[in-house]
Amino acid sequence: MKFRVSGNLGYEVITPSTLILNIHALRSAAQSVLEESLIIEPYFKIEELTTLYSENRYVRLEITQPVNVNINYSALVDTSYKTTNRNLLSEVPIVQMDASVLPYLSPSRYCQSDKLYCFANNKFGKIDNAFEKVLSLTKWIYENVEYLSGSTNSQTSAYDTVTEQAGVCRDFAHLGIALCRALSIPARYFTGYSYQLNPPDFHACFEAFLGSEWVIFDATKLAPLNGLVKIATGRDAADTAIATIFGHVNCTFISASCELAEDKFKPFNYTDSKSSGLTYL
Amino acid sequence: MKFRVSGNLGYEVITPSTLILNIHALRSAAQSVLEESLIIEPYFKIEELTTLYSENRYVRLEITQPVNVNINYSALVDTSYKTTNRNLLSEVPIVQMDASVLPYLSPSRYCQSDKLYCFANNKFGKIDNAFEKVLSLTKWIYENVEYLSGSTNSQTSAYDTVTEQAGVCRDFAHLGIALCRALSIPARYFTGYSYQLNPPDFHACFEAFLGSEWVIFDATKLAPLNGLVKIATGRDAADTAIATIFGHVNCTFISASCELAEDKFKPFNYTDSKSSGLTYL
Amino acid sequence: MKFRVSGNLGYEVITPSTLILNIHALRSAAQSVLEESLIIEPYFKIEELTTLYSENRYVRLEITQPVNVNINYSALVDTSYKTTNRNLLSEVPIVQMDASVLPYLSPSRYCQSDKLYCFANNKFGKIDNAFEKVLSLTKWIYENVEYLSGSTNSQTSAYDTVTEQAGVCRDFAHLGIALCRALSIPARYFTGYSYQLNPPDFHACFEAFLGSEWVIFDATKLAPLNGLVKIATGRDAADTAIATIFGHVNCTFISASCELAEDKFKPFNYTDSKSSGLTYL
Amino acid sequence: MKFRVSGNLGYEVITPSTLILNIHALRSAAQSVLEESLIIEPYFKIEELTTLYSENRYVRLEITQPVNVNINYSALVDTSYKTTNRNLLSEVPIVQMDASVLPYLSPSRYCQSDKLYCFANNKFGKIDNAFEKVLSLTKWIYENVEYLSGSTNSQTSAYDTVTEQAGVCRDFAHLGIALCRALSIPARYFTGYSYQLNPPDFHACFEAFLGSEWVIFDATKLAPLNGLVKIATGRDAADTAIATIFGHVNCTFISASCELAEDKFKPFNYTDSKSSGLTYL
Repeated sequence: MKFRVSGNLGYEVITPSTLILNIHALRSAAQSVLEESLIIEPYFKIEELTTLYSENRYVRLEITQPVNVNINYSALVDTSYKTTNRNLLSEVPIVQMDASVLPYLSPSRYCQSDKLYCFANNKFGKIDNAFEKVLSLTKWIYENVEYLSGSTNSQTSAYDTVTEQAGVCRDFAHLGIALCRALSIPARYFTGYSYQLNPPDFHACFEAFLGSEWVIFDATKLAPLNGLVKIATGRDAADTAIATIFGHVNCTFISASCELAEDKFKPFNYTDSKSSGLTYL
Repeated sequence: MKFRVSGNLGYEVITPSTLILNIHALRSAAQSVLEESLIIEPYFKIEELTTLYSENRYVRLEITQPVNVNINYSALVDTSYKTTNRNLLSEVPIVQMDASVLPYLSPSRYCQSDKLYCFANNKFGKIDNAFEKVLSLTKWIYENVEYLSGSTNSQTSAYDTVTEQAGVCRDFAHLGIALCRALSIPARYFTGYSYQLNPPDFHACFEAFLGSEWVIFDATKLAPLNGLVKIATGRDAADTAIATIFGHVNCTFISASCELAEDKFKPFNYTDSKSSGLTYL
Repeated sequence: MKFRVSGNLGYEVITPSTLILNIHALRSAAQSVLEESLIIEPYFKIEELTTLYSENRYVRLEITQPVNVNINYSALVDTSYKTTNRNLLSEVPIVQMDASVLPYLSPSRYCQSDKLYCFANNKFGKIDNAFEKVLSLTKWIYENVEYLSGSTNSQTSAYDTVTEQAGVCRDFAHLGIALCRALSIPARYFTGYSYQLNPPDFHACFEAFLGSEWVIFDATKLAPLNGLVKIATGRDAADTAIATIFGHVNCTFISASCELAEDKFKPFNYTDSKSSGLTYL
Repeated sequence: MKFRVSGNLGYEVITPSTLILNIHALRSAAQSVLEESLIIEPYFKIEELTTLYSENRYVRLEITQPVNVNINYSALVDTSYKTTNRNLLSEVPIVQMDASVLPYLSPSRYCQSDKLYCFANNKFGKIDNAFEKVLSLTKWIYENVEYLSGSTNSQTSAYDTVTEQAGVCRDFAHLGIALCRALSIPARYFTGYSYQLNPPDFHACFEAFLGSEWVIFDATKLAPLNGLVKIATGRDAADTAIATIFGHVNCTFISASCELAEDKFKPFNYTDSKSSGLTYL
């Protein structure tokens, strides 16, 4: 599926600063970046970072003087995904899990799964099928947490959201992840561009490791699951922030868009009758 | 330097469980494991896990029935370290940091550096030399946090310890790491066997990335810095737990020891007059 | 109803200390203390404190030297209570509430009702009858929070318990209070001696202000509601601690008992079919 | 000293609501309210609440329909205070404290003194003179916590502020109170109108019980200590909120002013050389 995406960031840089951006569409076997451009005004040299442990495309940018900076990323991306019958999406025994998956079982800054152990197991522990289990906790979040812009901040974590029950996509994702991990299901944070998200913005949701797949879930239900262009995955927002800033910098604007670049789109969402999970490869 | 180390764990397994142990001495260019044995009674098959993103030696163990298990690890290890003049241990600009180091700047489960930003910068931000900065925060922890067995639990984090001011080696390390990260100095958790630690136990301290080195710091001051045998490093205790347990299992005992296996040992600790930092390679 | 109660406290006093005890049975129109004794070994002068704002019977005790102290309180108490049809136990509009009741609507140290507003209203807000509302939240606590000795400490609050879902009577009461206040129902902490509590101990539960009554609720369901001898009420455990200690003192034991001092006792608990709430006058 | 004060509140009332206001200048032996008026537009009947346990002048207001409400309070107030030599402001032994003072030793919602015990005692415990002790912790707050509008919200507590080190007058006061209580010095929250506060607003600071006086302290140092017109005192902001709202109501504005209504004013603040503490009677 082809999408044209763009991300726009504006910063007022007060002191010499370094920014690490994570707004590039991921390149993978299943997601081709057909065209892309990154325009920074005024011009600053950027450096693309690659690491062994992650395929996320971080970009580093040093700004040595006070200035207003506009950053514009745009790309044409071809995504693909597959669906798997939910009966195949069973819980993976710890003993069979690949070592690369294990870190996604540990508690992290915004996903204190260790503190949600009783809550998660009391409420969802008895559900037999693992896909149903995650679907059920996603539904619980959707029904109990109010989507409310401005109700949370960068320090808000799953432990807060489970009780305060208000938040934005980031908070919905963190809570979903924490609950999965508390149930011994590996889960990771997913950031991306999202088609039909209204109002348009960067989006966050999460993936749970079921069967041998990273299956996508979105407790906000704000956009179709198959309209996502992946930017990054990580343990939580600390790993995959759109921008990590070192220095005194004010964000003046942030926006994102995602448009269909082909003819037809058939939205996919989980329903009770539908029998499969969706995976970005 | 040669050390004979041992780690002993006892578990009462109530339900079928999987354990992931992280008690093996690390093998690296600078640390040779000359001999080692792992004895599990009764016998269970173990699997050593290796990953791309870490050299930690995790061992996985499935226990399928209720049983009391004793785990005994022992090894003869040859460690080496180097010292670097503190003038070379300067702060690494973010823009020059290797991508593999960046994750150690992010907040993690037990090291909420984002919440300690003002505290760390108010108190230590003005110290010029980066090594002095970390030494100074280590000293502050030593002077302000009381070492008190049983005062904390597995949920205690740096955010608690900075105010409650009591804890064990794990808490001292988490606070040191969180303060470093709040100062934009990468820091990671270090677990190991520790010579002359009294009473003997597994030990935790931390490494800060200064110059181009991971320099070791121990805010507990309970043992010499050069008497450590490294087990693992990670973002915090969530990555490097001695044992991560999935299932209903009670720990019945846990002990560790570390004896010198050669003739002489000259303890190394940071002092005001000494001018170098210590790095395990 | 007549009960013979006793409370026993043992302290190892290390430095000169002051203790404020709150173990005396309350004297009120509806609760007569027929006999009582307080024996302190070795002998120390005590002072009974009375205040305008509370009828709790605090006793203050200065211990000027290191010593082991045993405190034994015993009393014969005649309690009375009334039951009120639940249809009369409706929610009191804020505008009609007596000023003396309003403080029990505010958040307090262990009952952060402000943080539980969404949770409480989402889950219980739609229940029409106020008595049913409190009964329902009490039931939710009983069903979701595990009674587990040693799982919590003196810093544990309702905000923890709602998520961590384990605790003791104190935690059950704090959560009940916080949820009531979040629903704009005044609620207060109740400590007392409890008949048929097993194992015997001091007990804590809570009262909600419904109709014009302080109706008793106990989310632990560990003892009959009509077997309580009231010691104190307050905003939370901070107001009504069995012992508040100033100085370096270790508690060596604490126990309590409550025996029936008449012939028959018919336990009273809320059931779906029973139509009344119980109030200690 | 005569001051003309005014407080203005605007509310958009969405659903039938009850408001409890606490904006009236206190009437006491030492503070005379010479003139005052409360204008509510449109007109709603108000009720003044009085309680046994507090002299605060709460006003209750029921608004039965959606409406925009403006509330204007103004008064001419004559205040008096006294100063006491700091050598007389010694720590009151717990054993000599009047029972009415004891509640101000307990932790409360926003002043978790129990969690600050080590911090407070490590940092300030060794200071001999009690007035100096409180002055010293006030100074520490002033020097370490940044006054930053909008940095905190209604859930922020002393436990947050001690580490996050940013806040407004409310947060400065809560931290001061929590530290005092952790040092076994009773302390209470003080709200008032404040002369020469810039920008003008309602103000909050705190009183510590020293000698036999409630001595005023203001860690913000934003206004002279003798320019305050007392509205209320309480355990913390939960007891003394300017407005407590039950119902769906949005605050549209809030402002306050305090002007001198006589000729001369000589600002009083604590300095190292000045030897007395200030008490509002």
